[in-house]
Amino acid sequence: MTLLEKTIASIVPSDQDAARAARAREDDLTKPRGSLGLLEDVAVKIAAMRGTARPRLDAASGVVFVMAGDHGVVAEGVSLYPAEVTPQMVANILAGGAAINALSRVAGARVVVTDVGVAADLPAAPGFYSKKVGRGTANMAKGPAMSFDEARRSIEAGIEVFEAEYARKAFQIAATGDLGIGNTTPSAAIAALYTGLPARSTVGRGTGLDDAGVARKALVVERALEVNSPDPADALGVLAKVGGFEIGGIAGVCLAAAAHRIPVVVDGFISTAGALIAAGLVPAARDYMLASHASTEGCHRAMLEKLGLKPLLDLGLHLGEGTGAALAIPLCVAACHVLDEMATFSEAGVSDKD
Amino acid sequence: MTLLEKTIASIVPSDQDAARAARAREDDLTKPRGSLGLLEDVAVKIAAMRGTARPRLDAASGVVFVMAGDHGVVAEGVSLYPAEVTPQMVANILAGGAAINALSRVAGARVVVTDVGVAADLPAAPGFYSKKVGRGTANMAKGPAMSFDEARRSIEAGIEVFEAEYARKAFQIAATGDLGIGNTTPSAAIAALYTGLPARSTVGRGTGLDDAGVARKALVVERALEVNSPDPADALGVLAKVGGFEIGGIAGVCLAAAAHRIPVVVDGFISTAGALIAAGLVPAARDYMLASHASTEGCHRAMLEKLGLKPLLDLGLHLGEGTGAALAIPLCVAACHVLDEMATFSEAGVSDKD
Repeated sequence: MTLLEKTIASIVPSDQDAARAARAREDDLTKPRGSLGLLEDVAVKIAAMRGTARPRLDAASGVVFVMAGDHGVVAEGVSLYPAEVTPQMVANILAGGAAINALSRVAGARVVVTDVGVAADLPAAPGFYSKKVGRGTANMAKGPAMSFDEARRSIEAGIEVFEAEYARKAFQIAATGDLGIGNTTPSAAIAALYTGLPARSTVGRGTGLDDAGVARKALVVERALEVNSPDPADALGVLAKVGGFEIGGIAGVCLAAAAHRIPVVVDGFISTAGALIAAGLVPAARDYMLASHASTEGCHRAMLEKLGLKPLLDLGLHLGEGTGAALAIPLCVAACHVLDEMATFSEAGVSDKD
Repeated sequence: MTLLEKTIASIVPSDQDAARAARAREDDLTKPRGSLGLLEDVAVKIAAMRGTARPRLDAASGVVFVMAGDHGVVAEGVSLYPAEVTPQMVANILAGGAAINALSRVAGARVVVTDVGVAADLPAAPGFYSKKVGRGTANMAKGPAMSFDEARRSIEAGIEVFEAEYARKAFQIAATGDLGIGNTTPSAAIAALYTGLPARSTVGRGTGLDDAGVARKALVVERALEVNSPDPADALGVLAKVGGFEIGGIAGVCLAAAAHRIPVVVDGFISTAGALIAAGLVPAARDYMLASHASTEGCHRAMLEKLGLKPLLDLGLHLGEGTGAALAIPLCVAACHVLDEMATFSEAGVSDKD
């Protein structure tokens, strides 16, 4: 039994009794019923994950998993930035200078970076895992991005890093992030498959393409889907044919979180592509996902709808790295603190409505 | 010169040179330009307030000002909860059991409650200010809610509490909150005046009215506007005729924040009514306001548009107390940390786009 099979086998749906108990408690707290909106839903969902009506979620209890990889499809001119930026940005994160570092510090989360498939040699460093499956994917516009075996190994890279970090120091919430020049293109292909939208509706500007660039990118996605004919019912095949190493890694983090019954905050467009792969492998994995934000990239909202997730933030973000997820962590912490700490009407001696 | 006049005279527009310098820095940080969306705008706006391209905003540097008052208009049956809930909820907050307590703890903010006009005697307590202007307003459906002198004193209550807290321990960000059974009704009247919307479009369910209750509330707002004929150009008159003591207090907090050039995070429907009064008195006060969230109550979005504010959160909140503002504080902190802490392209040795 492979690590992937073992992980998949250990995932169970979340606890709906705990969800009902948490909802009953929300309704008895000293506020008009439902007045905290989506924040109440988040607390109830986390209660179901953790199997308790009052789940603990402490500040400074999060880990942001940034998965990095390169993409052969950049040969088609789908990105404004050169591929050398991927290793440069890994170094920037490890030096603490990237957006995800600043945001994770505010969220009290630690950041770990994993090389799942960067097309350059990366030096060892604290907070860095080397799990290189390949030196960038092959060009999916001409054939499969990777082999089925590589697809499995990229997912297992995410599982292994999650397990290693958890063993090092247990955490209560995970967040996904991505790094990889060109990775909105495979993500758009995955999005097209799972949402049923045409390629031209799934692509976005990435790091700043103009209209002509976006149109070219849509054609590349179309060609990749034609050349590879991925079957949405075979998520591992989708990842192999039109995915990316870091997208597989993100799927692995989502699966490991579900196996541990820990909430995983999904970042934006690329992370949601990874989440779709995870949900394609195990539908119950969705029970452990929280959507951080609605990205302006491509058809992100449609992808979240497919997963049954409602985004917590709508700030016009399209950066990646886990930035939206890091911003959402304090909201998840807040949701659980409200559920656990607030007084009920009877405890506080407050009159309920007539 | 009254305290209100003095405060108004000390408010100046925010520093647009600092805003330009902050924007230039945002554009030079290691991320695609504009990829942090609204978060970048928040950082630039705070830079303008503080007059520096890299404003500091530390975690645990906030104060949430909860202003409490009662409303004579509850005699018209506009609320499901009895007025006794106002003092009960003051006690709940002071005991730490309300939603605003849980959320402020997560945000690292301290909560202070001010009685601006509760219709009950309230005991002294730590974190509590007694600035009672009256024991609830008069019924605005039959005449003015308060006198012009009371309106001025309610605003000054907010200024005084802000100044007292600032003298006690300086803070870097303020948030507004409200407490007062019936206070969505005067807020709807203020909203109608400043947005130009008909009363039926400004009222909401408050703490849970049914359709008939909402329709009755709209008629009450219409009657209050007819009976009192407030003039939007006279903000103090608006507050006196169809406002509330805590709404005046919130306006005072907004004005004091502007005078100190400190960001003030405006909570939901009632707080935004207070912000509209503040902006009616001094248009430049808007330069120091940040909108925390889009409330589901009444015409909140239209009120924010009138103030030129974009909400950071859209979680379906409609609780009040400052809960949305407390949730937004970590986003403001995050915005400033990104601007201050991230590396530039040249610092990090990352290639910019072609």
